[in-house]
Amino acid sequence: MSELQPVLLSGGSGTRLWPLSREAYPKQFLPLGSDDTMVQTTWKRVEPLTSLAPIVVANEDHRFLVAEQLRQIKAPTPKILLEPVAKNTAPAIAAAALCALEGGTDPLLLVLPSDHVIANAEAFRNAVESASAAAEAGALVTFGVVPDAPETGFGYIQAGAGHGVVPVQRFVEKPDAQTAAQYLAEGGYYWNSGMFLFKASRYIEELQKFQPAMVEAVKQALSAGTRDGDFIRLDKAAFAASPSDSIDYAVMEKTADAKVLPIDVGWNDVGSWSALYDVADHDANGNVCVGDVISVESRNNYVHAEGLVALVGVEDVVVVETDDAILVAKKDRVQEVKKVVAQLKHDQRSQAALHRKVYRPWGAYDSIDMGARFQVKRITVNPGASLSLQMHHHRAEHWIVVSGTAKVTRGDDTLLLSENQSTYIPLGVTHRLENPGKVPLELIEVQSGSYLGEDDIVRFEDVYGRSN
Amino acid sequence: MSELQPVLLSGGSGTRLWPLSREAYPKQFLPLGSDDTMVQTTWKRVEPLTSLAPIVVANEDHRFLVAEQLRQIKAPTPKILLEPVAKNTAPAIAAAALCALEGGTDPLLLVLPSDHVIANAEAFRNAVESASAAAEAGALVTFGVVPDAPETGFGYIQAGAGHGVVPVQRFVEKPDAQTAAQYLAEGGYYWNSGMFLFKASRYIEELQKFQPAMVEAVKQALSAGTRDGDFIRLDKAAFAASPSDSIDYAVMEKTADAKVLPIDVGWNDVGSWSALYDVADHDANGNVCVGDVISVESRNNYVHAEGLVALVGVEDVVVVETDDAILVAKKDRVQEVKKVVAQLKHDQRSQAALHRKVYRPWGAYDSIDMGARFQVKRITVNPGASLSLQMHHHRAEHWIVVSGTAKVTRGDDTLLLSENQSTYIPLGVTHRLENPGKVPLELIEVQSGSYLGEDDIVRFEDVYGRSN
Repeated sequence: MSELQPVLLSGGSGTRLWPLSREAYPKQFLPLGSDDTMVQTTWKRVEPLTSLAPIVVANEDHRFLVAEQLRQIKAPTPKILLEPVAKNTAPAIAAAALCALEGGTDPLLLVLPSDHVIANAEAFRNAVESASAAAEAGALVTFGVVPDAPETGFGYIQAGAGHGVVPVQRFVEKPDAQTAAQYLAEGGYYWNSGMFLFKASRYIEELQKFQPAMVEAVKQALSAGTRDGDFIRLDKAAFAASPSDSIDYAVMEKTADAKVLPIDVGWNDVGSWSALYDVADHDANGNVCVGDVISVESRNNYVHAEGLVALVGVEDVVVVETDDAILVAKKDRVQEVKKVVAQLKHDQRSQAALHRKVYRPWGAYDSIDMGARFQVKRITVNPGASLSLQMHHHRAEHWIVVSGTAKVTRGDDTLLLSENQSTYIPLGVTHRLENPGKVPLELIEVQSGSYLGEDDIVRFEDVYGRSN
Repeated sequence: MSELQPVLLSGGSGTRLWPLSREAYPKQFLPLGSDDTMVQTTWKRVEPLTSLAPIVVANEDHRFLVAEQLRQIKAPTPKILLEPVAKNTAPAIAAAALCALEGGTDPLLLVLPSDHVIANAEAFRNAVESASAAAEAGALVTFGVVPDAPETGFGYIQAGAGHGVVPVQRFVEKPDAQTAAQYLAEGGYYWNSGMFLFKASRYIEELQKFQPAMVEAVKQALSAGTRDGDFIRLDKAAFAASPSDSIDYAVMEKTADAKVLPIDVGWNDVGSWSALYDVADHDANGNVCVGDVISVESRNNYVHAEGLVALVGVEDVVVVETDDAILVAKKDRVQEVKKVVAQLKHDQRSQAALHRKVYRPWGAYDSIDMGARFQVKRITVNPGASLSLQMHHHRAEHWIVVSGTAKVTRGDDTLLLSENQSTYIPLGVTHRLENPGKVPLELIEVQSGSYLGEDDIVRFEDVYGRSN
């Protein structure tokens, strides 16, 4: 039996869960209905099935998030394939398959979107195991979710006769409500979950038949790519030359070896706030309250509070409070959240893509206060991490360490600061901040000056390869 | 003709507009639907009618707010009567009347709650002028608002026959819906607005008839009270001995000289969020949006945003966002906001009474960030103001001036700090912060220590008479 190679697809930018999910920190990196983030949960779900480290396909911008979140749950060090441009799932999975084949073995790839919920992980693992023989024998197995409602937001898979893993009869596009109801009544139709199991070599073989240019481009992108720690950076020019297509169109709908295993494992793609409401535990009034919520005579609401949220007499409403944006939406209208995001993008506002707390390779900063000529940030530096050696033309900075230890380079001096110690970086002075310790460093930075934009920075050295 | 002496009643604690209005900073001090606060608007509305400075009756806790807000609009220096305990309107107005009589003249008192909206100030001033002759002749005139809806939240006044100032036929309690509708259909019934015009001496005479103990207690409270700058602090023991009663019960319903002038001046007591919605300008979708609001397919909502609030598909909802609490309420259920406040009080939570930004006699502080062993505050010190000479047992403080100039006493040293300068106050060191300048001083304070409660303070000297 071949080893199982989990492939986590982490390409999504999940704006349907705005304002919690934003481009720079989307859904898969959030703890939605769990203490772990969705990418962490996705890995933990399949970890018992394999001794291999995950292969993750991620957006360049999310590389440190992926690495850090998997590190936090002590996952074996992953290979992280970075897509320089988005090309849909077929090339992404091809890159993962080729990468898996590099070791000289031909594992079973278990392809998993990393932003779905599966309530019954045990049942899912059992399903993977029951699909393994067919995949080992050369089938391209997709997992079809037994529908419990006439959903119009998913594609459907019609299964052939029989039990267990059966041939796919056909893939059907997202149906209208009437057709969806008919599928549900008729039976034998399953939601297309986007999860697959097949031998790495079989996927490449079949892709070669239908999309030879794609295979060629991805091979090029991998061989011309650069390896940098855990990251495998696909070559931009080569990858950009690949056709863009989904695995469904490129392979699954064309191959003679498509099979489907119906699963009933509490799957939910959490594609909207109302979906998140549906999968969560409700209180006696039908409310789902995450955080500090006071509810008076209110029913069937979803509330995510980072501060205090009070509800009075409201029903079927979604309230999502974050540091710098609040959403109040009718639960059956949450798909239109994308219009808010579109408006923010149009207005070039940061809330479209960024949270107030911004994650960096070295940690994070949170802009906690701002005035005409000053800004206050809480800066967190991970153990062992280091900001770039830098200089600002328009601002001075005051640093007060409130937790952990800082190593500060200031001009020609080097200082070690611990809790309750401070220093001052005059305008124009070259400086660097490092955390030499074993616990996170937290400091308060007070910037003072006439211009306080993030772009007033001259970087001299950066361990993360950033020049500006 | 006697001079007009405006008396501003500022006793309310307005929790029906929580979370914007809180006990320590209630409705009358907020700019609701205007650039000025309600107490400022109340003064500006009557300023053209008089050359006298206002008499204000206020809660002890609000004394600096009243003084500061009237100073900001360059009102003549008011006399501010401080009630040591709340005793309803009759004693409060008695204190104002006795105070007005101290100068040896007998002015016409114009008694005004300072938390009501009057859309047509000009019409209101005209009404005051047309009521003056009757008041001058000894009548106790109340202003009755011409009703435009069968409101059940107000008491009504039935007027006698005639035009202009006419005798009151009777006062009636808050009616049920059917009775209110009947009043509206019948005509001759007016809302009891709580605004009055009478000679100071006439009020005292009539009060003496019906509540002699009250007059005695208030006279005592005034004569035994202390005068401290603009403040007249009524003697606590004496004032506490006064019966508690409203001017309506104590005087207006009993006197033979009660008269009423019907007015139609766009009056609204802004007694709830829905009332505030009603008086504000609506956009094309019927929304009232104060602040940064993105509205998608949403109608007839009231939104007060301090950050960004996005609405999607909601109708008839009130959303009020503040730094540390958010209210989402159905517009026809906003009276139940008081249940939220009651819950917060029960749980002894600061949001019941305090905003995140807390006003002090010397300025304000805003707690912008907090961690396990640190807290960050933005501190604003008014020009010329001074914090107490103080010391903390459990925390050190880092101060960074970001605007204006600070005079810092630290142990035996005195420093002058300007923008972009900082200092450090070690734990246990006596210190004082002053603003010697002409513009507000803003500084960022980073507290570091094991206990950061406001009660870790030893005060040695305090210009505002606070010992702890």
